[in-house]
Amino acid sequence: MAGCRGSLCCCCRWCCCCGERETRTPEELTILGETQEEEDEILPRKDYESLDYDRCINDPYLEVLETMDNKPVAAGSGIPEIKCYLNGVKVPGIVRLRTLLCKVFGVLFGVAGGLFVGKEGPMIHSGAVVGAGLPQFQSISLRKIQFNFPYFRSDRDKRDFVSAGAAAGVAAAFGAPIGGTLFSLEEGSSFWNQGLTWKVLFCSMSATFTLNFFRSGIQFGSWGSFQLPGLLNFGEFKCSDSDKKCHLWTAMDLGFFVMMGVIGGLLGATFNCLNKRLAKYRMRNVHPKPKLVRVLESLLVSLVTTVVVFVASMVLGECRQMSSSSQISNGSFQLQVTSEDVNSSIKTFFCPNDTYNDMATLFFNSQESAILQLFHQDGTFSPITLALFFILYFLLACWTYGVSVPSGLFVPSLLCGAAFGRLVANVLKSYIGLGHIYSGTFALIGAAAFLGGVVRMTISLTIILIESTNEITYGLPIMVTLMVAKWTGDFFNKGIYDIHVGLRGVPLLEWETEVEMDKLRASDIMEPNLTYVYPHTRIQSLVSILRTTVHHAFPVVTENRGNEKEFMKGNQLISNNIKFKKSSILTRAGEQRKRSQSMKSYPSSELRNMCDEHAAPEEPAEKEDLLQQMLERRYTPYPNLYPDQSPSEDWTMEERFRPLTFHGLVLRSQLVTLLVRGVCYSESQSSASQPRLSYAEMAEDYPRYPDIHDLDLTLLNPRMIVDVTPYMNPSPFTVSPNTHVSQVFNLFRTMGLRHLPVVNAVGEIVGIITRHSLTHEFLQGRLRQHYQTL
Amino acid sequence: MAGCRGSLCCCCRWCCCCGERETRTPEELTILGETQEEEDEILPRKDYESLDYDRCINDPYLEVLETMDNKPVAAGSGIPEIKCYLNGVKVPGIVRLRTLLCKVFGVLFGVAGGLFVGKEGPMIHSGAVVGAGLPQFQSISLRKIQFNFPYFRSDRDKRDFVSAGAAAGVAAAFGAPIGGTLFSLEEGSSFWNQGLTWKVLFCSMSATFTLNFFRSGIQFGSWGSFQLPGLLNFGEFKCSDSDKKCHLWTAMDLGFFVMMGVIGGLLGATFNCLNKRLAKYRMRNVHPKPKLVRVLESLLVSLVTTVVVFVASMVLGECRQMSSSSQISNGSFQLQVTSEDVNSSIKTFFCPNDTYNDMATLFFNSQESAILQLFHQDGTFSPITLALFFILYFLLACWTYGVSVPSGLFVPSLLCGAAFGRLVANVLKSYIGLGHIYSGTFALIGAAAFLGGVVRMTISLTIILIESTNEITYGLPIMVTLMVAKWTGDFFNKGIYDIHVGLRGVPLLEWETEVEMDKLRASDIMEPNLTYVYPHTRIQSLVSILRTTVHHAFPVVTENRGNEKEFMKGNQLISNNIKFKKSSILTRAGEQRKRSQSMKSYPSSELRNMCDEHAAPEEPAEKEDLLQQMLERRYTPYPNLYPDQSPSEDWTMEERFRPLTFHGLVLRSQLVTLLVRGVCYSESQSSASQPRLSYAEMAEDYPRYPDIHDLDLTLLNPRMIVDVTPYMNPSPFTVSPNTHVSQVFNLFRTMGLRHLPVVNAVGEIVGIITRHSLTHEFLQGRLRQHYQTL
Repeated sequence: MAGCRGSLCCCCRWCCCCGERETRTPEELTILGETQEEEDEILPRKDYESLDYDRCINDPYLEVLETMDNKPVAAGSGIPEIKCYLNGVKVPGIVRLRTLLCKVFGVLFGVAGGLFVGKEGPMIHSGAVVGAGLPQFQSISLRKIQFNFPYFRSDRDKRDFVSAGAAAGVAAAFGAPIGGTLFSLEEGSSFWNQGLTWKVLFCSMSATFTLNFFRSGIQFGSWGSFQLPGLLNFGEFKCSDSDKKCHLWTAMDLGFFVMMGVIGGLLGATFNCLNKRLAKYRMRNVHPKPKLVRVLESLLVSLVTTVVVFVASMVLGECRQMSSSSQISNGSFQLQVTSEDVNSSIKTFFCPNDTYNDMATLFFNSQESAILQLFHQDGTFSPITLALFFILYFLLACWTYGVSVPSGLFVPSLLCGAAFGRLVANVLKSYIGLGHIYSGTFALIGAAAFLGGVVRMTISLTIILIESTNEITYGLPIMVTLMVAKWTGDFFNKGIYDIHVGLRGVPLLEWETEVEMDKLRASDIMEPNLTYVYPHTRIQSLVSILRTTVHHAFPVVTENRGNEKEFMKGNQLISNNIKFKKSSILTRAGEQRKRSQSMKSYPSSELRNMCDEHAAPEEPAEKEDLLQQMLERRYTPYPNLYPDQSPSEDWTMEERFRPLTFHGLVLRSQLVTLLVRGVCYSESQSSASQPRLSYAEMAEDYPRYPDIHDLDLTLLNPRMIVDVTPYMNPSPFTVSPNTHVSQVFNLFRTMGLRHLPVVNAVGEIVGIITRHSLTHEFLQGRLRQHYQTL
Repeated sequence: MAGCRGSLCCCCRWCCCCGERETRTPEELTILGETQEEEDEILPRKDYESLDYDRCINDPYLEVLETMDNKPVAAGSGIPEIKCYLNGVKVPGIVRLRTLLCKVFGVLFGVAGGLFVGKEGPMIHSGAVVGAGLPQFQSISLRKIQFNFPYFRSDRDKRDFVSAGAAAGVAAAFGAPIGGTLFSLEEGSSFWNQGLTWKVLFCSMSATFTLNFFRSGIQFGSWGSFQLPGLLNFGEFKCSDSDKKCHLWTAMDLGFFVMMGVIGGLLGATFNCLNKRLAKYRMRNVHPKPKLVRVLESLLVSLVTTVVVFVASMVLGECRQMSSSSQISNGSFQLQVTSEDVNSSIKTFFCPNDTYNDMATLFFNSQESAILQLFHQDGTFSPITLALFFILYFLLACWTYGVSVPSGLFVPSLLCGAAFGRLVANVLKSYIGLGHIYSGTFALIGAAAFLGGVVRMTISLTIILIESTNEITYGLPIMVTLMVAKWTGDFFNKGIYDIHVGLRGVPLLEWETEVEMDKLRASDIMEPNLTYVYPHTRIQSLVSILRTTVHHAFPVVTENRGNEKEFMKGNQLISNNIKFKKSSILTRAGEQRKRSQSMKSYPSSELRNMCDEHAAPEEPAEKEDLLQQMLERRYTPYPNLYPDQSPSEDWTMEERFRPLTFHGLVLRSQLVTLLVRGVCYSESQSSASQPRLSYAEMAEDYPRYPDIHDLDLTLLNPRMIVDVTPYMNPSPFTVSPNTHVSQVFNLFRTMGLRHLPVVNAVGEIVGIITRHSLTHEFLQGRLRQHYQTL
């Protein structure tokens, strides 16, 4: 089963290091859509669920609406995890308090221990956790922290808060509030919600300035001033004023930047490919073993890193002359400050006086200082040192990312890329004779090229780098470089975050579908095998539905017999609809059989009456036959009451094709809540006697609703009836089976949907579309099928 | 009819200068939803149409799809006009070449002539026109410029290009590429389209750097360097290094900034209120008169401006000491450059040597220089001068904006606000004794506060100002100020652009609906009176539909008789649907009567056969009775062929309620194109014999499709049949009648729709929602009705 599989293996198209390719029959490909776990290729896993971002406006919600007049219902990682969450996927436990604490301490020790890891990614994740937890005023990890604060109890609000938190994390890490906002938008937002954007921007500005407030006060003693930008600061790029010919960059340099972008893209692709192989190896060989193995791996990485750093500095470093301070005195006062900072971090390391070890200067400083060295120190690194440093750092960082330690990738990539850029500048200056170029710009562009090649971010990374340099004129070169790096890298594999997302099998939705996919329609990708409920359903049916399926939402339908004949004849457009129903119908009988089987295992001997205290006293009678009686009963006081009606094998075609008119969607969590809270009425009463739940009661258990299997069935009376209509979503977005995939995708992604019912021209539900039906892999499989049937 | 009307008059709630309020009966309010023109209060006008932003994926489009494999179909003011266009409203002629030329020359002379107008707004408009025109490779104004370039021929692509053009305009005007991108997003984009955002950002970066390339080369002779930011540049805010205590701003200053924001909001609201009154006066008294009157008004403005400038400078200016250059020599070289620039623009103007006239320095410099003076000149303006300058400039700018000259508002507002901010700084320094504050920051914040109070932009204005100052640490104060200014101003009236948009009656859609509106549902706001077509329709019916209605889209429906009885009884949820159909049904008969009347006026005597060369020879027969025969004929070889079937007054209830199953939407432009190109088949043939149009043929006439009234009816054979199914949009987005208004609004705005059919649970169309049904005024009217019926 090893090896890649056609175009499913988008990482392996070219790259020789993970290239062995096999051909598969189309049948296999079709089947693969169903496989859960694969050794080499990871398909989207079904246990990652969508968020319920779409707002369900049902009766309880409307009651909330009545009581408040214009009171605003506030709209509103590791980086891969946050990316998934913002994309709308529930990743278990990523926004928990315990995660935050582990992350913070882990990264503290990781960075302090000299590992080649960054602290920016974990900081973004931390921001997101704070965003998710704070507005809830409760915590799963610390059960005691729980106030009576019933707002923001929905996936929608929580996701908005996570957006703001992640943006604040970026803002604090890079001093880039705008970049942080755009990061959240780029990764998460589907539609441009002005209110949310403004709140996110305000949140990240506040984060930046809170950080600056304390840093200015604590580090420099000037409380109340806000001069310092974020934690990562690239210093000031400035030509010394004595040099009138000096420009930070010129039009000609742009050509070199494009080339550096290409090389950065290639290097990034190589990095990603190696790291992916490593991650797969870890998944196979390290993760299944006891946790001690992971700790040992981390220790091994530390050990090797330390040895390499020392040996490289001693053996490979060059002793170079200190740059004279006379050169600096020409510059302005500002420049001196930066230069003094830079000079003070030079490391002598076994070199004679007045010289220093260039390799040690890079290795024995903090990553941030080393970046500043590469950006601002004038001409003091030999090309050989830079090249060796780049190679060693590249390999060690690649090994380190993914080890069981919270680890960022931003700063290591920037440092690595800066060495590459500085190397290019050195070569151009020394060997090509372009003396007037500004080395710092080249180092910056190199950093951007490599980072862009690794993470493939565009808009937000451009802005983050502009803000970190505080130099707007770098906008164009950075953007061009990032774009070229992304294009080059995308030719070979995905960005590192997408790779790690893919390795976990998270069903991430891309930004848009390929044009080709418009050959498919909603009816080609929908799931026709539906489990439905009727508006009025017996508890025993509900329980059996909930226990025998894993669906998170159920269409509420009614049956209409007798008018089917009309639909079958005459009208061409309408009879077209019937073809969409065929597969749905053919599976319906089988599903109902399964359901009635499951009901027989219902613990009917323990049945007890909970919510019909005022109902007629029940006759104990022949308990074994009770279910059988109900299954066979044909009398219907409530229209379409019995989903448990036994489907007979001798149904006529007409009966099988009876239409299921679609009325709304009800969520599993809603049904369970109704059962737990005893919302039901007895057959002898009208549905108006059913108790009503408020919005707060419906939302109280968010985000962890009780499981149907934890329910004590003995407390439920199976013969009571539940009227779900006040609690269902009566007007979810729907699409027609003819809708093209791009439109479906657009609607689904933009509105943040979780379930999209497919309803034909006469109002019958024929299928349902979920996130999994819209992943790239699934669509490609369907497209392949489509071509085969042509 | 004068005066304001309840909450419809959102500009008049408080402001005393336009406050006369009257009460109206609810009936009047209901009727007012229909009025076309009003003297004092402007309701949305029906002649502003939505763009067709939604993509129609029909058969011709799919054929294009077949021929190209992954070839990307590139996804795609005055400021009020651009705002409307980006919001999705067709404003006639705003993106025409002639408009561009007028704008460019107008603003050239306006600015050169010393009027208090800015050139930024017109520049943004110019950018948008270029964006709209360039990719079309044709021009209406210059008919000869027309290449055979069939791409981008849709409202969707055009709007995307206009977004990019407007962003480029902002980028060039302010040197703010990121701000420009966010401007386009804030005003226009409904959903966050990453591809489009990236293209827009690239476009505006390119605009900035193209400008810089030429300015660096021409003004400073250093071709190939890109040091200069945009046209409007605020200089460098920097503490002189000798002053260690100097901070650009401190935490304490934030309090003052908030207060300045409040005052700025109040001033802006006053400005807007005065300008609105003036604009209304102009609409009543100036615009109806000959064009000469407008020219005379412009001349009068010029004259008064000149007189005021001279008189104020001579009479009110103070002669003040030149600031000594010793103070400046402390600073760095950079600071000197700025200061030298600033000092060189000081005006002596009848003052003794070594002194200068402070009023003249502000009035006789270009606006940009005056702003630089206020931002960077140290302590040289007396508070009285600043106060007088502010008042004079405020009044003159208010009078000038809206005169018949292309005029921007950005720079005048900034200048005016800077004077206010500088005044605050002077007062704080001299009278409160806060010596350490940095005047430049206060001037900048004052400028932001006033501009924010006038235009009420938030996100993009924050970014634009940050980019113009090239100082990221100003982010928080600018944002806080703008937010406070906006909140304060919004308390009284709308932003100036929204006011002018409102005065034209453009049906602009807000960002979101108020929470209260969720008490309404789609069925409350939809237009139930529909004009529909059948899948196969006779030409005579199509022509009469097109000639007797002004709708831009028609639902394609089929009728299903016989199954109605089923729907009527038994099923509660379904019979609910019937109530949504009542109003639709009751108007249907009337509409059909009108239609058959119109058909009798069809020039049947001139009927000629165009497209049935291969059809059976027609019998001339009794031409007068032909129509009558057809009206009465009951035989239906094609299902539901005859929309011209005469409705009889004695229809049973059941007949009236027969369902119209919805199959798709067809646009007026599509129908006319089909007629013009002779796409039809004769009764004796099958619909497969109908000629097929390609995508290019359908789009060829974009954006000016032929009018039905220009069609030579004698060329059409009224008895031929058109099959519209290949050309209709078979899967437009639809909503159920139960959908709440916020959801409808969200879908409509996000997806950029023009028509949103309302379809009930059994697939019947019961109404249609357009942009006009979602304007604030219309919704408020309906909400009022809703409360009355309760």
